[in-house]
Amino acid sequence: MIVVKVGGSLGIDYDAIAENVAELWQNGKKLILVHGGSAETNRIAEKLGKPPKFVTSPSGYTSRFTDKETMEIFEMVYCGKMNKGIVERLQKLNVNAVGLSGLDGRIFEGKHKDKVRSVENGKIKILRGDHTGKVEKINTHLINLLLDNGYLPVLTPPAASYKGVAINVDGDRAAAALAIALKADSLLLLSNVPGLLRTFPDESSLIKSIPAKEVESYLEFAKDRMKKKVLGAAEAVAGGVGRVIFADARSKNPLTKALAGEGTVVA
Amino acid sequence: MIVVKVGGSLGIDYDAIAENVAELWQNGKKLILVHGGSAETNRIAEKLGKPPKFVTSPSGYTSRFTDKETMEIFEMVYCGKMNKGIVERLQKLNVNAVGLSGLDGRIFEGKHKDKVRSVENGKIKILRGDHTGKVEKINTHLINLLLDNGYLPVLTPPAASYKGVAINVDGDRAAAALAIALKADSLLLLSNVPGLLRTFPDESSLIKSIPAKEVESYLEFAKDRMKKKVLGAAEAVAGGVGRVIFADARSKNPLTKALAGEGTVVA
Repeated sequence: MIVVKVGGSLGIDYDAIAENVAELWQNGKKLILVHGGSAETNRIAEKLGKPPKFVTSPSGYTSRFTDKETMEIFEMVYCGKMNKGIVERLQKLNVNAVGLSGLDGRIFEGKHKDKVRSVENGKIKILRGDHTGKVEKINTHLINLLLDNGYLPVLTPPAASYKGVAINVDGDRAAAALAIALKADSLLLLSNVPGLLRTFPDESSLIKSIPAKEVESYLEFAKDRMKKKVLGAAEAVAGGVGRVIFADARSKNPLTKALAGEGTVVA
Repeated sequence: MIVVKVGGSLGIDYDAIAENVAELWQNGKKLILVHGGSAETNRIAEKLGKPPKFVTSPSGYTSRFTDKETMEIFEMVYCGKMNKGIVERLQKLNVNAVGLSGLDGRIFEGKHKDKVRSVENGKIKILRGDHTGKVEKINTHLINLLLDNGYLPVLTPPAASYKGVAINVDGDRAAAALAIALKADSLLLLSNVPGLLRTFPDESSLIKSIPAKEVESYLEFAKDRMKKKVLGAAEAVAGGVGRVIFADARSKNPLTKALAGEGTVVA
């Protein structure tokens, strides 16, 4: 089993991903796709007059402040435009894809965090009304039902809280939790960089491999959204996933290349 | 089996629908929800600077002209905001809902119509680049898989063309095709009117019942979007569905009231 997470940053070639997924799937590989939609959500939110608001936690992690209206925009882009765009690409290639959010069948479940701590001008502020959380539970029943019947699941945040409320969760860490729950051999975290870079954004400084036990010590090299990928990788390998590969999704055959070890391999 | 189609017009009480669906579901009724999203799509399309364009066919049916950009907005609203909003309401009520479009698992399939005939200032024009069609095939396998495993399907357009392209289809007629394929006892078509009115918009002119064989002769009373409901009803009863009920979704317990015969009953 391979879990493939495709980010939502600019530059990602979704046509290339769909073609490569179709090729692997039609050759009998079991796989699941998880995707993001961050850049497009920002663009649509701006156009709708509700610009995105990001908060930085005291420990340096950045996340989207997701009030109710932002959640609706988030769902429009992630579950609507991005998810159905990927499903359509796969259906055109004769892959019987089924697109679902973490709300559907409660595939992704976790606690709802209503409050978030935000560092603003050096001071810590508490913001309320947030709809975020972290995936703590994967409901594998529905996923296995689909896989066992020949459907390829295409999954996206939001997740469901234990009370059924839509919550924004980090897609990389959701994919890590999914890979653990499904005992995946490989978790591919594809984005618009070649992998973890020692000196971002110098692509020649690519770190080619990271020993599983040392992942967290590499956090210092991770900038912004890459931090959560490194955290997700640490969680995945600690949870029994064979290997995690950070790789590039800006050119042809991104999955095949990543599976061949192109990128940063955590094992 | 009951197929419930909820329109996307203004005034519909989605909370009331979710509560009533949950009550029936938890009492052991097998049902499927199909929904629209027309009014909200118009609003979002306007805000995104891509106002909706409607075309009227020579035979008097109105439909949304759906170029590629419009399809993306359509998917954002129908598959994102509306679908996940309904799934979230049901999950909060402990109904394990699963929201899907017709693209997913090709639940709704039909021919892609690229050209549409439009009457403009009394002249017939041919418009190209349309992504529309009509549901001709229902893939019941995925729906039955969900129902048999305790998941309530929440379905929405678009459908998939036979080549896997997203196509805009009429939700009422899709629901009719679904009700036929699943051999449903009842098809409820809920909207923001009490049923078919003899003299629209006078709600006291409600037509309480229509004999199955005479449905098409009632087309003359149907205005605008109600026309497709009448067509859908004619198709459904001709296809073996026990009865079709046009009913109101603006107050509490809309399903229970419709099942008790409040509205226009076609049987």
